[in-house]
Amino acid sequence: MKRAVDLALLGIGSVSPNPMVGSVIVFDNKIIGEGYHQKYGEAHAEVNAIQSVLENHKNGSELLRKSTLYVTLEPCSHHGKTPPCSDLIIRHKIPKVVIGSVDPFESVNGKGIEKLKNAGIEVISGVLEKECQELNKRFFTRVKHQRPYVILKWAQTKNHFFAPVNNQQLWITGKEAKLLVHQWRTEEDCVLVGKNTALADNPQLNVRLVKGRNPKRAVIDRNLDLPQNLHLFDNSTETFVFNKFKTAIEHNTKYIAIEDFDYFLPQYILLQLHLQDIQSVIIEGGAKTLAMFIDNNLWDEARVFTSSNEWENGIPAPKIDGKTISTQNLGNDTLHILKNINSL
Amino acid sequence: MKRAVDLALLGIGSVSPNPMVGSVIVFDNKIIGEGYHQKYGEAHAEVNAIQSVLENHKNGSELLRKSTLYVTLEPCSHHGKTPPCSDLIIRHKIPKVVIGSVDPFESVNGKGIEKLKNAGIEVISGVLEKECQELNKRFFTRVKHQRPYVILKWAQTKNHFFAPVNNQQLWITGKEAKLLVHQWRTEEDCVLVGKNTALADNPQLNVRLVKGRNPKRAVIDRNLDLPQNLHLFDNSTETFVFNKFKTAIEHNTKYIAIEDFDYFLPQYILLQLHLQDIQSVIIEGGAKTLAMFIDNNLWDEARVFTSSNEWENGIPAPKIDGKTISTQNLGNDTLHILKNINSL
Repeated sequence: MKRAVDLALLGIGSVSPNPMVGSVIVFDNKIIGEGYHQKYGEAHAEVNAIQSVLENHKNGSELLRKSTLYVTLEPCSHHGKTPPCSDLIIRHKIPKVVIGSVDPFESVNGKGIEKLKNAGIEVISGVLEKECQELNKRFFTRVKHQRPYVILKWAQTKNHFFAPVNNQQLWITGKEAKLLVHQWRTEEDCVLVGKNTALADNPQLNVRLVKGRNPKRAVIDRNLDLPQNLHLFDNSTETFVFNKFKTAIEHNTKYIAIEDFDYFLPQYILLQLHLQDIQSVIIEGGAKTLAMFIDNNLWDEARVFTSSNEWENGIPAPKIDGKTISTQNLGNDTLHILKNINSL
Repeated sequence: MKRAVDLALLGIGSVSPNPMVGSVIVFDNKIIGEGYHQKYGEAHAEVNAIQSVLENHKNGSELLRKSTLYVTLEPCSHHGKTPPCSDLIIRHKIPKVVIGSVDPFESVNGKGIEKLKNAGIEVISGVLEKECQELNKRFFTRVKHQRPYVILKWAQTKNHFFAPVNNQQLWITGKEAKLLVHQWRTEEDCVLVGKNTALADNPQLNVRLVKGRNPKRAVIDRNLDLPQNLHLFDNSTETFVFNKFKTAIEHNTKYIAIEDFDYFLPQYILLQLHLQDIQSVIIEGGAKTLAMFIDNNLWDEARVFTSSNEWENGIPAPKIDGKTISTQNLGNDTLHILKNINSL
């Protein structure tokens, strides 16, 4: 199952809004086939794993009848973009299936397991369940909470300052942290910033320091007064502009009007991103935007860099209440990852 | 240019929401290269045409310096998903460019031509302009009117009845018409029906009689009381359900709440489809839904089959006021295609 989890992770950045899934087929204590869900809309992990057995072994179809199939997520039982995987497993007479986590999605949700059991297949579920759930935290959040998985990201000085008071751009963290942020951007569907950050930093919010695909971008610009020469409006990638007045598509820039800007702004933003099939979003600032998501308890994970230097003054960093799940040193900086205890 | 138009058409169903574009390169009165925009996000027509010259002719780069490039749509001058085509043409020192129609999109709109002219290239535009505009009626409608291109489709008896009065399903047209309707579905992004049609016909709205990709589907179900066992809810393809209460994504079914169901319903539906990157929609009934789009003058094209038989009674067919642009016999039926004189 550990191998299946590793395989599943190879799909990061390519399968959204589908889940990441890995599958391994074992015969006589040896892996004889494996596969993962590689790209949205394409073959599921189990299909690829079964295919690899049939391709690499002359007696593949015989082997399948004596093998165990490991899969990180319950096999689907419904017709989606591809036929149901549970039917495929039954058809190939695989006698045993080991499942990481049950699919919380309504039209699967135990029905895949039921179908397998009804066909006389031995089913074990909940193996490495926590790891398998973590794998699909984005997908599960989408299905359960009808919103994208929200990752807050910021950097702060040792004494908890977030940015200079004068809107000046000043880097807090070193190059290791920057590399990691670019890596993260390749993994999530969208990056969002507030108006002040767009103005002060003129960020590109794309991926330059590592290899990988660019995320979509989003900016909050209530009165549409951000200048059009900002990088955010260069149409290089799909960019959502949440505002009070205009719903329109201008090439790669999608203006989406939010009726009620004074109440429920983060809720409306997440709903609109959800409708745009955004399964995860990194909120990269500024302090006001981050605070808005924190105050409304609309976040799942916070990734906070703390540098070793201190400033005399500045804008204070957001205050957040979560469970620290990892701490890591990166050059002179420390990265804390926190989870919202209510989020899943 | 006629050849470039034919090439462009090969992209139908695959390039939306991008425009369909074809390009041909001519040297010494012979076509030495051609290309078209094949798939959304991938290389533009000009890139493929230039590439084909370089691949098929040893002295390709020399030939390009003496050739004429024909392209159905003004070459782009901005960075989108690919680098600007006008830069590529300039780089390859192609001395003459013949353009079908100018790109109405804001960030191109004459700027591509200007860029070419500033580089000393001879530019002729407006060649077969009408055909080239027709080619991108969907794209132009999206950009100019911020809504999908709306195609109304229905069948009527010779004496203008549309359906039996008792909600019974009764086919009016023959198999030739049915084949054509399936072909159309492969060409447009979405097919929409009203609640009564969903109930009476339980349509699949997919493509079965010809080869090609399925469109997305949409249904109007104000109070969400359509039964879940209808084909429309089988999750086989992305389906939008416009209703009064719920915005949620359940696998491939996207519920979108429309706040104001009593006023501006067709406007809101088209706006939401637009935000979902739907560039064209076929309204396949019923009479009430068709009338709603006609009454609000929110349609671009109507495709009306008239059979040779007469009924004694039934629901009257919609009345529409448009310009007939083609009349065609199909088996025992006649197909009239009308255009809205205000639509473009």
